[in-house]
Amino acid sequence: MIVALAGGVGAARFLEGLIRVIPQKKITIVGNVGDDTEVYGLHVSPDLDIVAYTLAGLVNPSRGWGFREDTFHCQEILRKYGYETWFNIGDRDLATHLSRTQQLREGSQLSQVTQNIVRRLGLRVALLPATNDPFTTYVVSRGRRMHFQEYMVKQGTRPKVSSVIFEGARSAKPAHGVLESITQAEGVIVCPSNPIVSIGAVLAVPKVRPALQRTKARVVAVSPIIGGRTVKGPADKLMKSLGLEPSAVGVAKCYRDFLDTFIIDQIDKKLAPKIEDLGIATIVAQTLMKTMADKVRLARLALSEIQS
Amino acid sequence: MIVALAGGVGAARFLEGLIRVIPQKKITIVGNVGDDTEVYGLHVSPDLDIVAYTLAGLVNPSRGWGFREDTFHCQEILRKYGYETWFNIGDRDLATHLSRTQQLREGSQLSQVTQNIVRRLGLRVALLPATNDPFTTYVVSRGRRMHFQEYMVKQGTRPKVSSVIFEGARSAKPAHGVLESITQAEGVIVCPSNPIVSIGAVLAVPKVRPALQRTKARVVAVSPIIGGRTVKGPADKLMKSLGLEPSAVGVAKCYRDFLDTFIIDQIDKKLAPKIEDLGIATIVAQTLMKTMADKVRLARLALSEIQS
Repeated sequence: MIVALAGGVGAARFLEGLIRVIPQKKITIVGNVGDDTEVYGLHVSPDLDIVAYTLAGLVNPSRGWGFREDTFHCQEILRKYGYETWFNIGDRDLATHLSRTQQLREGSQLSQVTQNIVRRLGLRVALLPATNDPFTTYVVSRGRRMHFQEYMVKQGTRPKVSSVIFEGARSAKPAHGVLESITQAEGVIVCPSNPIVSIGAVLAVPKVRPALQRTKARVVAVSPIIGGRTVKGPADKLMKSLGLEPSAVGVAKCYRDFLDTFIIDQIDKKLAPKIEDLGIATIVAQTLMKTMADKVRLARLALSEIQS
Repeated sequence: MIVALAGGVGAARFLEGLIRVIPQKKITIVGNVGDDTEVYGLHVSPDLDIVAYTLAGLVNPSRGWGFREDTFHCQEILRKYGYETWFNIGDRDLATHLSRTQQLREGSQLSQVTQNIVRRLGLRVALLPATNDPFTTYVVSRGRRMHFQEYMVKQGTRPKVSSVIFEGARSAKPAHGVLESITQAEGVIVCPSNPIVSIGAVLAVPKVRPALQRTKARVVAVSPIIGGRTVKGPADKLMKSLGLEPSAVGVAKCYRDFLDTFIIDQIDKKLAPKIEDLGIATIVAQTLMKTMADKVRLARLALSEIQS
């Protein structure tokens, strides 16, 4: 069994390769729920959906989120009704949020709901939210706290962030299966996702980080930062504004207490010694995933490192 | 002030004429909520929406419900998720149900929510649900009770109905403004709607029928049955299977305790004496509304009778 810690688009692209290399049934994905939000009264889990839609081959490939060729007719009318519509939800995408919200209201846990959706989309992976409990990522900018989605989508990551808050982190319990899968895994892969607000939010759930430190499985990460920049999302900006080095080294430092091997891009090969100095084995490879062949090659590399 | 008691499509078509004859601000519509149902966790008020969309010029003209040129993409995915999708909700239409449901969950009453929607659609009429309280129309067929929408939409009105039940009717209170508007009206118009499940459901709300009996305003109805058949909906079938005469006379009998004037179609002119025998003044006219001119003419006729 392979466990993958995942954020959104970067993770989903990596996982597209992974499901082509090992059977889906052998993959447990632990997903970030800190970005979850309520929109129009519906529970939206952006990162879980990005992973599920992508692996099901349904995602909009240019955006990286939502259904491919979706329409936005519902939102047009909601705008007429006076709603803010900066958080874009397509008509097909709404079905997921309606179904999730209804199941949660009827008493199901987010992990059950997510698994139902994943199965209906034809997937065999296990996709676990890091926690079923209330857990919300906020950023603080100029003394004002805002939901991560407001920072990310409404404000377009423009505000300078002084700190990140994971509300609910103290009392959240890992969802059933999260700790067990990490403990019993053959290997753990930390996907190329934001180390602060995606992987960081998974790690902020109590007992997850200690489980990673203790697991006998090899823990391999793929750097989300290539040449000092992220492919997608605000990881570089966020790291810089939090005083962290926006580089593969900076990411390695975030994971140094549990990471065995770090896969960094060839453009960053000069950083390898600094990462090795942290006690982390470093592999230099092509990490930019443009084609499916790139994704498969990267997945094979991570797996071979786990099995070596 | 003119008060109109309304069901769905037939009423909406008549009201399209009425708003072209008198200012919208002078019209209070009391709408049927017995057909309301929960779909995908959302509160749907079919008759209120049909009236609102029609008067706003947004309704799908051939169906008579839903938004014109709407898409059904959300529903396609909900079907994939295992939902029954016989109750058709278009993507634009969903916006109304999302907005209504969220406002209701936040503690607003259906009458406030409805008025918010109506205003956002640019209308100036008052559209009042007959009641804000739980009130649901069921039909009984072969000993089985089914929600009116199951009978109407899922079963296509095929089951033979032995009785109609208005659940909640005993304890429902008329929404604020319903009794007052009937009492103070210059005239009351009973729109050409199903006398059993549409107007009948409005009349089943306690105190509404007595208010109609007592009001000094003239009460004028337009027959929904022309030549023994309804233009739209199951009124004729329902009346027949409940042992009522499926004709303008049968409808007149449903309203005899409060109706002053009944407008029936010219095809039914031979029925006029029977209706007059019930103590109801009868006007023979062209009641089939094919064009806007037909609707305007019929509205003018009803108004002239009120003002005579």
